[in-house]
Amino acid sequence: MSDHIYKKIELVGSSPEGVEQAVNNAIAKAGQSVRNMRWFEVAEIRGHIDEGKVAHWQVTVKIGFTLDE
Amino acid sequence: MSDHIYKKIELVGSSPEGVEQAVNNAIAKAGQSVRNMRWFEVAEIRGHIDEGKVAHWQVTVKIGFTLDE
Amino acid sequence: MSDHIYKKIELVGSSPEGVEQAVNNAIAKAGQSVRNMRWFEVAEIRGHIDEGKVAHWQVTVKIGFTLDE
Amino acid sequence: MSDHIYKKIELVGSSPEGVEQAVNNAIAKAGQSVRNMRWFEVAEIRGHIDEGKVAHWQVTVKIGFTLDE
Amino acid sequence: MSDHIYKKIELVGSSPEGVEQAVNNAIAKAGQSVRNMRWFEVAEIRGHIDEGKVAHWQVTVKIGFTLDE
Amino acid sequence: MSDHIYKKIELVGSSPEGVEQAVNNAIAKAGQSVRNMRWFEVAEIRGHIDEGKVAHWQVTVKIGFTLDE
Amino acid sequence: MSDHIYKKIELVGSSPEGVEQAVNNAIAKAGQSVRNMRWFEVAEIRGHIDEGKVAHWQVTVKIGFTLDE
Amino acid sequence: MSDHIYKKIELVGSSPEGVEQAVNNAIAKAGQSVRNMRWFEVAEIRGHIDEGKVAHWQVTVKIGFTLDE
Amino acid sequence: MSDHIYKKIELVGSSPEGVEQAVNNAIAKAGQSVRNMRWFEVAEIRGHIDEGKVAHWQVTVKIGFTLDE
Amino acid sequence: MSDHIYKKIELVGSSPEGVEQAVNNAIAKAGQSVRNMRWFEVAEIRGHIDEGKVAHWQVTVKIGFTLDE
Amino acid sequence: MSDHIYKKIELVGSSPEGVEQAVNNAIAKAGQSVRNMRWFEVAEIRGHIDEGKVAHWQVTVKIGFTLDE
Amino acid sequence: MSDHIYKKIELVGSSPEGVEQAVNNAIAKAGQSVRNMRWFEVAEIRGHIDEGKVAHWQVTVKIGFTLDE
Repeated sequence: MSDHIYKKIELVGSSPEGVEQAVNNAIAKAGQSVRNMRWFEVAEIRGHIDEGKVAHWQVTVKIGFTLDE
Repeated sequence: MSDHIYKKIELVGSSPEGVEQAVNNAIAKAGQSVRNMRWFEVAEIRGHIDEGKVAHWQVTVKIGFTLDE
Repeated sequence: MSDHIYKKIELVGSSPEGVEQAVNNAIAKAGQSVRNMRWFEVAEIRGHIDEGKVAHWQVTVKIGFTLDE
Repeated sequence: MSDHIYKKIELVGSSPEGVEQAVNNAIAKAGQSVRNMRWFEVAEIRGHIDEGKVAHWQVTVKIGFTLDE
Repeated sequence: MSDHIYKKIELVGSSPEGVEQAVNNAIAKAGQSVRNMRWFEVAEIRGHIDEGKVAHWQVTVKIGFTLDE
Repeated sequence: MSDHIYKKIELVGSSPEGVEQAVNNAIAKAGQSVRNMRWFEVAEIRGHIDEGKVAHWQVTVKIGFTLDE
Repeated sequence: MSDHIYKKIELVGSSPEGVEQAVNNAIAKAGQSVRNMRWFEVAEIRGHIDEGKVAHWQVTVKIGFTLDE
Repeated sequence: MSDHIYKKIELVGSSPEGVEQAVNNAIAKAGQSVRNMRWFEVAEIRGHIDEGKVAHWQVTVKIGFTLDE
Repeated sequence: MSDHIYKKIELVGSSPEGVEQAVNNAIAKAGQSVRNMRWFEVAEIRGHIDEGKVAHWQVTVKIGFTLDE
Repeated sequence: MSDHIYKKIELVGSSPEGVEQAVNNAIAKAGQSVRNMRWFEVAEIRGHIDEGKVAHWQVTVKIGFTLDE
Repeated sequence: MSDHIYKKIELVGSSPEGVEQAVNNAIAKAGQSVRNMRWFEVAEIRGHIDEGKVAHWQVTVKIGFTLDE
Repeated sequence: MSDHIYKKIELVGSSPEGVEQAVNNAIAKAGQSVRNMRWFEVAEIRGHIDEGKVAHWQVTVKIGFTLDE
């Protein structure tokens, strides 16, 4: 049990709403092809501005999942 | 079109509500004197505590805007 | 007045809701044993994923408080 | 449109010519298996020396591409 | 020969024994699906504590392997 | 002479050709409104990819210029 | 359960044997005054040299433990 | 009051005397064109050597000032 | 002797005079409750500006002291 | 063969042409006194500006060479 | 006694066994030409992989030694 | 003139007085064996504590000097 191996992948989620929803979107997308996701780490928060307002947030997350079965 | 030049300025927005509103406030203020804002990067998140609670969030953002016309 | 000394402690707050609530929880806990908290700095944002969704956010904060009396 | 999800992969391109060609080589290779590449970020520049001269440049790039549709 | 392209993947190996064995475990796991591994870089060393002792070490490694031919 | 004061501004130059030309473009643009530029520091190298190739390089530079007299 | 609060303390363990034993020593010492330790993060590895050999390893670890109940 | 917006500018002050005087010089210069300066952050300390001695210290400071009125 | 354990605490000392006095103040305050202090590390130098001048320096120091006896 | 020891030295090469030539110049100079150079790492890219143009590029490189024979 | 001057050199030790032995090898080699070594700092841990296994560890260490008398 | 090559060496100067004197001491020592020193960069500020007070400051400086003539 203590010898688990994990893989980390790096995604950028975006959302017009904010940081949390951008992360949720990234994790939801990753979940379509990866099973056993265990944790995430926020690596960068940025976003696009359009007509003087935040158009959408872009959050880079590293997602860790179990490789073993 | 591929030879755009951008300038980045660094602002600190604050808000009692949270990260997103602090960023919105910084961008709204910047928009009073800068046109053609294109993106932002969150550089630091901190805040003041008063009477044991978060009084306001302070978020440092770098804002990029187009210099050419 | 200009010779205040502050101490920083490092806590990890967690919350199923998001970044702000995780920070609020950490500060509320710290306030049970520390008086005169003055500011916080977000050092890391991460979280656990369960069944393909964010189970809770974990935010590392440094909290500064006045040491002098 | 504002809810795109991107994935970043990390490659090391090499070239005897210089930084730009090493990046071009990495992107060309990535393009054989990844569609919809959108941006790259240079993470590290190094290289091998042979007989007192640069034998080839090695540039680590992160490449971002669209995951959706 | 000087135009090799490499890909880096990021894994977390764990072991109750120590840093070296955690790295060995990560590389052994990666070798089940990746050929031509060439080097690794240790990015982070941490671990879990159980009943006052290190239960297992967790070492994040980036593993580089050749993409070509 | 030893008491000069300098200001640094942060620009992003872009070019389809490469790093050097992107920096040259940023400095040429800055020179339209700033005199006495003295040095630059490359802070970030990235770029856009279009149809599987580098469309243009984007190089963030800090430019230092003399404030005095 | 998802609202745990953790505190991190920073210790430097030392050992003539190596990294793992230095970490073990730091955690054993911390366990004399702290309960519910959950994880550690290695922040720095260094050491003293005496008569041309490593006299002891010094490893800085951050130790996280549960604050609640 | 909690919604102040601040701007940060980056200056390099120099002085033959030392770190403090170099910072003072940068702030005095900034004060000629900026009102409501509130804090500074030292980003880099370096200097020139002439004839085997420090000729002058060069300290990069970020200066924060209030944008609102 | 080679198995000492040290703890690091993080303080912010302030002084209207400069970096050295701010560090001295932090260490003097720490010495009221901690014995066997052995070293310090400067982590950050910043300060407040009032009426266009440095009102006081704020220096973040990590202080290491022996835990064993 | 697996027990090679390498030394790294840090040089700054300069060139009016660009990054690659500045690195080449540093390596050529190092080769006058060091044998068995094996790799280089680019640590910093900056340069001087004269009359509104890049006068020369300055690239800091770490150069690794074999110590054993 | 408090005015010692130290020099730091940067070496890469390698070993098929692990981190500690790679550091020992680097220090032993340095000791052939440098006297009065006092401390080391681990700057990077990486290694080569051959046939799916760690062939040797490569650890970059900075070694500090006394320059005076 | 634009093709100068510089070498950087890393020294730690110490002084009971403060940062500036520790740097001065390091540069004075370096000047005994190196000619044509041109600049320095402060990399780290720390020090030893004895009997509750700063015994001496230890400042790590990188010193750049011209290699060519």
